[in-house]
Amino acid sequence: MLHKLVRPVVQDFTPYQWELSTAEVARRYNLDPGQIVRFDTNTSPFLPIEFSQQLPEYGRAVPRVNEYGDASYAGLSQDLAEYHNCQPEQVVIGAGADELVDMVAKLFLNNGEVAVTAGPTYPVYALATELMGAQMLEVPRGPAPDFGVTAAQLAEVALAHNAKLIWLCNPNNPTATAIPVAAIEELLERLDGRAAVAIDEAYAEFWQQSALPLVSRYSNLLIIRTFSKAFSLAGARVGCVIAQAETAAYLNRVRPPNSVGNLSVVMARQALQPAAVAEMRRRVELILAEKARFSTALAQECEAVYPSVANFVLARIGSPEQADKLALALLEKGLVVRRPGSMPGHFRITVRLPEENARFLEVLASNR
Amino acid sequence: MLHKLVRPVVQDFTPYQWELSTAEVARRYNLDPGQIVRFDTNTSPFLPIEFSQQLPEYGRAVPRVNEYGDASYAGLSQDLAEYHNCQPEQVVIGAGADELVDMVAKLFLNNGEVAVTAGPTYPVYALATELMGAQMLEVPRGPAPDFGVTAAQLAEVALAHNAKLIWLCNPNNPTATAIPVAAIEELLERLDGRAAVAIDEAYAEFWQQSALPLVSRYSNLLIIRTFSKAFSLAGARVGCVIAQAETAAYLNRVRPPNSVGNLSVVMARQALQPAAVAEMRRRVELILAEKARFSTALAQECEAVYPSVANFVLARIGSPEQADKLALALLEKGLVVRRPGSMPGHFRITVRLPEENARFLEVLASNR
Repeated sequence: MLHKLVRPVVQDFTPYQWELSTAEVARRYNLDPGQIVRFDTNTSPFLPIEFSQQLPEYGRAVPRVNEYGDASYAGLSQDLAEYHNCQPEQVVIGAGADELVDMVAKLFLNNGEVAVTAGPTYPVYALATELMGAQMLEVPRGPAPDFGVTAAQLAEVALAHNAKLIWLCNPNNPTATAIPVAAIEELLERLDGRAAVAIDEAYAEFWQQSALPLVSRYSNLLIIRTFSKAFSLAGARVGCVIAQAETAAYLNRVRPPNSVGNLSVVMARQALQPAAVAEMRRRVELILAEKARFSTALAQECEAVYPSVANFVLARIGSPEQADKLALALLEKGLVVRRPGSMPGHFRITVRLPEENARFLEVLASNR
Repeated sequence: MLHKLVRPVVQDFTPYQWELSTAEVARRYNLDPGQIVRFDTNTSPFLPIEFSQQLPEYGRAVPRVNEYGDASYAGLSQDLAEYHNCQPEQVVIGAGADELVDMVAKLFLNNGEVAVTAGPTYPVYALATELMGAQMLEVPRGPAPDFGVTAAQLAEVALAHNAKLIWLCNPNNPTATAIPVAAIEELLERLDGRAAVAIDEAYAEFWQQSALPLVSRYSNLLIIRTFSKAFSLAGARVGCVIAQAETAAYLNRVRPPNSVGNLSVVMARQALQPAAVAEMRRRVELILAEKARFSTALAQECEAVYPSVANFVLARIGSPEQADKLALALLEKGLVVRRPGSMPGHFRITVRLPEENARFLEVLASNR
């Protein structure tokens, strides 16, 4: 069934081929990696002058920045497979979730075809869909506070329009709500392989649930994860897709040859070390506790603050003009808030440190 | 004319919108950037544990890696405009030349349309073309040592097939030869705006020539540059396009929201500081001198070594089997060479440090 979903152009595709990675040359020929010299990449043999001065300690841990890293990301794939309890062949790595969204669109969407999502949601799925010449159909979510959508609704729209792909952000941005894993499973059953399902789980570490256990049963399911939220690495630009090995192999055909930088790979690998994962989980608990406190306080200052399963809350402020006015008052105090284009009159507010959240509440109180 | 070349879907496109950058908030409201708190990005308020331990000095110079950087790359755009003697509005930044190639394909190539290149060349142009559902026509280059192609040949094929885009790698990978700037100008005149021309100048710092001065006269010309070669930053993944402001604005519509990491932006900006640029130019001279020496020595060991205007040379080794056997002998000594898929029996060899090149020659001599 998967073969039918993958674009014919991708099925015939031979992706860009590199020579063997330095690690692989070392392994095969029993060499010290430090002795391997790359005459194949047309890079500079010199380190940048600033780099060697400012990164003396760090420099030892990373591949030299004047050279390309391992384009297969073998080490990071292994670490991600351990974290996600799957095989390295099931992992596809990209420069943040956004690049993976682009790759998923390239894999499944031909010109003139249809994709489906449940809106309001993160607008990048629609942009990636349209860039492939495909059309996005948005199933409207139900009213606050659930902003719900059922498997039956999604499957009906997708099948009626012969959609090739369903995009879901789960937990959803900007509503901070989640479709239960059981409903994802029901959706996959109803689709019966007739459309791919890409689920962006950027906030899964805060939700503490995931559709990952379904991957082993559905070759048309792709889970997008990121280091940008709970892992404290937004500025490193690293994300991954977890899917069945065959699906991942197709996705790797459309993967850019080497878009994640050497330092970003190292930082992502460090973030997956047991001590760092334990600290990440401890911080998630801190943020969830702070979210409860912050939400209660915010509710005193807003028309409504909706329940959230993520590290942000959606708040109803009032009219679009009132929201813009309040956003400006916050900006003047150096506090930047998100006004989702799809939900005028609302704020999407990240839960931050208690002292930062206190500054936010103070401005709200003084602008009532 | 440009409007006719840009895909209709892109003309109607509203790219992903961020809230104001931290630098812009600071400027507008006269605030200390350190006091600005972002409640809009759903990132973690905490630094990674490893990062703060290992990057104490560097950490002060960069945006915190737990936050997104400025998605407009305003500072780096300014620095690149100074280096390339143009306006910041003419600069589009991406995660290496490869991402910019992908963006150019998205901007100009609809399903079923045609692009043209002169082959053999870097295979990523054809991959990006095919991913858009478009078809690549390859004008064959002439014989060694020039591997030449004329403006008339390129224009004739492009116009006969109503091509929307011409891809040129100049200096060309893997031939190490360049089309003269005057021929690029002639091509643009012959096209008269009927196709866009994207020139990948990854090796321009070694060639010490460029089609950049033509940009002000042709809105359909896009020059791709990279930090991966002369600037010693292959592992940072940063590149840019220089084009007219209107062309750059279109390209920015299809640019991923924020694919270049914070550290990569800082490293690229450091590479553009006057002292670093002077050092880069000094190193280019070292490599050009070493190229002359290395080429002469290589010519004793190969069937032919062709003249090169880049930091690599193309060498004819013999039959594909002979080339594979020699590549294996090199690999066993930890020396990796590029065997261009488009030129069996040839090696593409990067000019590296004298002692590294000596190791290369030694293996060649012992395998004669």
